[in-house]
Amino acid sequence: MQDLNITLAHGNGGRLMRELIEEVFARHLGNDYLDTNADAVALPLNDAAGEMVITTDGFTVQPLEYPGGNIGSLAIHGTGNDLAVAGATPHYFTLNVFIEEGLEVEVLERVLAGMAAAAKALQVQIVAGDTKVVRRGEGGGLYLATTGVGTRQPGTRLAIDRIMCGDAVLVSGPIGDHGIAVMLAREQFGLRGELRSDEASVLPLTSALISLPGLRFMRDPTRGGLATVAHEIARGTGATVRLRQADIPVRDQVQSVCKMLGYDPYYLACEGRVVAVISPDNADEVLTLWKSLPEGKHAARIGSVETGPARVVLETELGGERFLEELEDDPLPRIC
Amino acid sequence: MQDLNITLAHGNGGRLMRELIEEVFARHLGNDYLDTNADAVALPLNDAAGEMVITTDGFTVQPLEYPGGNIGSLAIHGTGNDLAVAGATPHYFTLNVFIEEGLEVEVLERVLAGMAAAAKALQVQIVAGDTKVVRRGEGGGLYLATTGVGTRQPGTRLAIDRIMCGDAVLVSGPIGDHGIAVMLAREQFGLRGELRSDEASVLPLTSALISLPGLRFMRDPTRGGLATVAHEIARGTGATVRLRQADIPVRDQVQSVCKMLGYDPYYLACEGRVVAVISPDNADEVLTLWKSLPEGKHAARIGSVETGPARVVLETELGGERFLEELEDDPLPRIC
Repeated sequence: MQDLNITLAHGNGGRLMRELIEEVFARHLGNDYLDTNADAVALPLNDAAGEMVITTDGFTVQPLEYPGGNIGSLAIHGTGNDLAVAGATPHYFTLNVFIEEGLEVEVLERVLAGMAAAAKALQVQIVAGDTKVVRRGEGGGLYLATTGVGTRQPGTRLAIDRIMCGDAVLVSGPIGDHGIAVMLAREQFGLRGELRSDEASVLPLTSALISLPGLRFMRDPTRGGLATVAHEIARGTGATVRLRQADIPVRDQVQSVCKMLGYDPYYLACEGRVVAVISPDNADEVLTLWKSLPEGKHAARIGSVETGPARVVLETELGGERFLEELEDDPLPRIC
Repeated sequence: MQDLNITLAHGNGGRLMRELIEEVFARHLGNDYLDTNADAVALPLNDAAGEMVITTDGFTVQPLEYPGGNIGSLAIHGTGNDLAVAGATPHYFTLNVFIEEGLEVEVLERVLAGMAAAAKALQVQIVAGDTKVVRRGEGGGLYLATTGVGTRQPGTRLAIDRIMCGDAVLVSGPIGDHGIAVMLAREQFGLRGELRSDEASVLPLTSALISLPGLRFMRDPTRGGLATVAHEIARGTGATVRLRQADIPVRDQVQSVCKMLGYDPYYLACEGRVVAVISPDNADEVLTLWKSLPEGKHAARIGSVETGPARVVLETELGGERFLEELEDDPLPRIC
């Protein structure tokens, strides 16, 4: 493809679109199942594969590239992670691309390369796709939407309604890295930093726990962060989620940016962490399993679910208590 | 939900987003499988259902509403049609929504109502979704992306490489209605009209043909229209596609708008038509089957695939010939 920038004609179904699909998309994402000439594709899932699970996610992160990832790798990780926390192994993805006229082809190439590398590492294949180009001013550069199909052991039941009072709450690593890394990449406050997004597949973390008998629920704390997952648990169980500030891992750089800008790290997005709720008897086992993995070496037991009104209580390091309210304003839009 | 317009906070994972999902999306699209609290959902497809087929599509049509449909019903029909022309019956859809800050909730409600009605008629369920809100100026009001999962008889093989020289080409109804209806709805040329989009499910049309032994290939001529489907056939077979202008159904109103603006109707999008390629022995049977359906009463045999160079030839009504070139410029962006 000779063009340096995407034009409207790259989305019209004609020659330029065909070249974009064949020479750019298929070059990065090609595999045995992706047939750029087909309307739909058969998925080779057999009975042995287990129960089929599906999820979908949109991505609008700005900037498109940041330390630790880009919107392409994020789409693979984010969608794969939604399957992983449901106890599934991801297999096949579909991809929708909305490109704003004028996007540099070079940027698109890097995004697709990031996507291809993440897909290869996760052993998933993109089996169907669609591309639309919108006029300059009608898009934010690039939006992606991915749907993921995975399989899990039939009968897997991980859900908020399985949580019981007394259960332990754990997190697999420091929170808020993604939110702050993306914010720093915007350079909008004159701040810069070395922080990388935590963006990664959580499949090793979720697979490690999947056969633990006391496992109730897992979720990746993305938009709205840890506090929002805690609220979902409180609302779903009608019980109190109690978190201990001293035990919640937060990197120094995240902490200091939050202090400077008045953000609360508990609401910041992660893209490679898991929150797990498990019977208290199995909590130590989770820590041992997670800490044996590179992805989980900073894992921590951070709180519990308790009898009490449906709310989220943070025990502060000074020994006090404060409520973590449900998120209202959006401190960082287009973070994922 | 009390807000009249969508705000960034409706996409942040917090309270307003939860209300938008629970009170607007779930009210229109709710079903037994859609769990707005789950990361991923199990799909109840059993062996009896046949081979699983998947497809995906993005929608950016402008305006969001037009005579005969809206972006919501279009997303259901467009994605369902991609499954239908692959010989499948649609079952489960996922939905991604990209909303531009400021969109009227009233418009969103009408779009979702259109989507719900189309889904109900097609007997498909939306089993997973995601919503993102982007800042004013970073989106075109509303974009949708849908992935559809369907099933078909194992071993169904409809593909361009099954086409043979001598095969007949048929279309199920008049072409270009969608393109012109959407263009008229923009009122950008001071033109108005009564024309409705042909937007509809083509499942009755495709199901009618699926057991015909000589059926080679079906496609819905959306972006790039009939000429683009013909080009795909010519390129895929390495043969000449010959179309007869006199036999191609085009409504008078489409014809006159095309004359006025210098458009070629063969490149205009349809959203409820099927192009079928079939052995010449079965062509009459296709016409009989289609004409017995309300969706196919203007069906016509419009041409054939012939030995010769890979190109598309139009026999004009005056007895001449012209090549239909591969689409280059985009006469009507954001048409689907």
